[in-house]
Amino acid sequence: MIYLDNAASTPVHEKVIEEMIPYFKEQYGNPSSIHSLGRIANAAVQTGRKRIADLINADSKEILLTSGGTESNNTAIYGIALQNKGKHIITSSIEHDAVLEPCKRLEREGYRITYLPVDKYGLVNSHDLRKEISRDTCLITIMFANNEVGTIQPIKEISTIAHENNVVFHTDAVQAVGKVPIDVKELGIDLLSISSHKINGPKGVGALYIRKGITISPLISGGGQENGLRSGTENVASIIGFGMACKLAKENMDQNITHFKNLTSNLINRVLKEIPGSILNGHMEKRIPNNVHFTFLGVNGEDLIIKLDENKISASTGSACSVRTQKASHVLRAMGFSHEQITGSLRLSVGITNTEQEINETVETLKKIVQELRAVSPYKSKYNF
Amino acid sequence: MIYLDNAASTPVHEKVIEEMIPYFKEQYGNPSSIHSLGRIANAAVQTGRKRIADLINADSKEILLTSGGTESNNTAIYGIALQNKGKHIITSSIEHDAVLEPCKRLEREGYRITYLPVDKYGLVNSHDLRKEISRDTCLITIMFANNEVGTIQPIKEISTIAHENNVVFHTDAVQAVGKVPIDVKELGIDLLSISSHKINGPKGVGALYIRKGITISPLISGGGQENGLRSGTENVASIIGFGMACKLAKENMDQNITHFKNLTSNLINRVLKEIPGSILNGHMEKRIPNNVHFTFLGVNGEDLIIKLDENKISASTGSACSVRTQKASHVLRAMGFSHEQITGSLRLSVGITNTEQEINETVETLKKIVQELRAVSPYKSKYNF
Repeated sequence: MIYLDNAASTPVHEKVIEEMIPYFKEQYGNPSSIHSLGRIANAAVQTGRKRIADLINADSKEILLTSGGTESNNTAIYGIALQNKGKHIITSSIEHDAVLEPCKRLEREGYRITYLPVDKYGLVNSHDLRKEISRDTCLITIMFANNEVGTIQPIKEISTIAHENNVVFHTDAVQAVGKVPIDVKELGIDLLSISSHKINGPKGVGALYIRKGITISPLISGGGQENGLRSGTENVASIIGFGMACKLAKENMDQNITHFKNLTSNLINRVLKEIPGSILNGHMEKRIPNNVHFTFLGVNGEDLIIKLDENKISASTGSACSVRTQKASHVLRAMGFSHEQITGSLRLSVGITNTEQEINETVETLKKIVQELRAVSPYKSKYNF
Repeated sequence: MIYLDNAASTPVHEKVIEEMIPYFKEQYGNPSSIHSLGRIANAAVQTGRKRIADLINADSKEILLTSGGTESNNTAIYGIALQNKGKHIITSSIEHDAVLEPCKRLEREGYRITYLPVDKYGLVNSHDLRKEISRDTCLITIMFANNEVGTIQPIKEISTIAHENNVVFHTDAVQAVGKVPIDVKELGIDLLSISSHKINGPKGVGALYIRKGITISPLISGGGQENGLRSGTENVASIIGFGMACKLAKENMDQNITHFKNLTSNLINRVLKEIPGSILNGHMEKRIPNNVHFTFLGVNGEDLIIKLDENKISASTGSACSVRTQKASHVLRAMGFSHEQITGSLRLSVGITNTEQEINETVETLKKIVQELRAVSPYKSKYNF
């Protein structure tokens, strides 16, 4: 199996699993228990927290542990909105549903939401942002890197504008963490969402960075864990595993980025050269190094996924999370793509386990499949491939 | 180590770990991905869901997967409350904070909340319940079994009253599942919260049973997983592990209950007989079989925990989750206990791994420690032990 869907989820690193096992078997205490097994569990949570913090140059106390990226995004958005009833939030039109859905819900409850447009590369314009800020704006939430096309937003610019206007800035960095160096202090980020399973950690755990001085309301209340901001028994094994994934991501950042770039450059170059009617979507430079997003004109992306799967290659059309709705990608629509361009799209996202040979095999398979699909395409005569 | 804090958390069963490992290592797909790795992950989620449903005689479609008991309780309470703005909720005064805190929050937002009193055994009175129901009542949320003293509420009676009045009935069954047979259909339960790590499954995963026909609003929104009721990539390994824990709990229910009863009967009998000034709290018969809750007059429970820990015995004073607040137990206060009785309390909760010999060792250690602590107790002259 050639797994090229690392933006959807990643294999758990062997060292992460090793780190987790003892917390299932022997160190199963509840971190709130005062006996030694409880204290050992609590120490593990703090170790995990520290390693998560280190990856983004945050302080341990600024890390809120959650059940994943979606909960982190929900916590950030509702957490600020609840303290600013009925006010104004600015987001972008290409956010993940984990940001858009909470925004839509708040809109139904009477909040005003602005969805910033993007250009054909998927970039938000800082001029648009400035224009939309009003006295009522309480939150700007714009993703670090897009989950479909991989475009990286001008985060430093956005945070500067936010702070000039005393607005809190949240970024969904689920796709960016571990793919680009992130220093929350240098970038001036107030709230940042991370997911463990996108960086070779286990599923079901994530974090929200909350800059010291920023106050949010909790989404889940109860026993008062996480300083009352997220109740529920801490997911000890997953937190220590997530921490190890962050530690590895930090230690191997440079070599991983080089590895990703080598693989994706080869993939992009070969496909654009060897497959006619193929287009690279997103920005040429401002993109996360592990993401490649193509359009193959005259081809249906879903058919492509299925054919690739038959050839033991795992890929996706765009966001895994929007598959069930069968909607055309809102990201590509916002970027001004035609229906045909959207339909023919394919996302290939590489990870630490992929090899050069896998990429070459993928290109060969793609060449064959695209040709086969085009032979029976309703667009056949249009393009005369 | 003799672990007698199974009400706080439990060791993960060896078979549960075995079931989980492949979903970290090889089957790491995102259940929303349409390729084969995605479909395998999705099948695992459905297998887990079915096994959870089977434990409580529910249908798979009635199981909402969450990150744990606290999220399940929050989802149930806010989920009903959001559809009944400003209305009336009835709960009890001895609920876990994961129920009380959402209720208090709703109270601050303008909902009316009734906290039913309990008798000295921790039992809610159905006459009180009937009296408090009004036309505005939208939800009754009363726990199945108490997490401190183990008292089991008259669930069938409560559900009958709820339905006679067209009120939705939720029960926090975190401490009861796997300890008593639960048939949601027979008991007439509408919403029921379960936690994995209380029944030898992993932490960080739980479920909310939602009876077919009951509609709730989601707490966490995004990619639309769980039929839009709980977004976020499914925690595949933990869900399959939780499912296995439920399967084992179901298969071994009778022998586990017998095992728990043997251990706790011996513990109760020996302590009450051999340690003067010891009292068993909670109800004599209406209690979960794995819970024992004592008061040792003239002793400080926290000191007892620390001394037991020094003797390699893990125990707790009450709820692990309320330790950080250092508050006197609201449960024991509601049961009418004096400050002294509350201070001297100790919870010993047995699990599947405990042995008769461990219980006998615990009794011997307790005898010694209680005597030592009483020798320096400020209550020494009062009791003349």
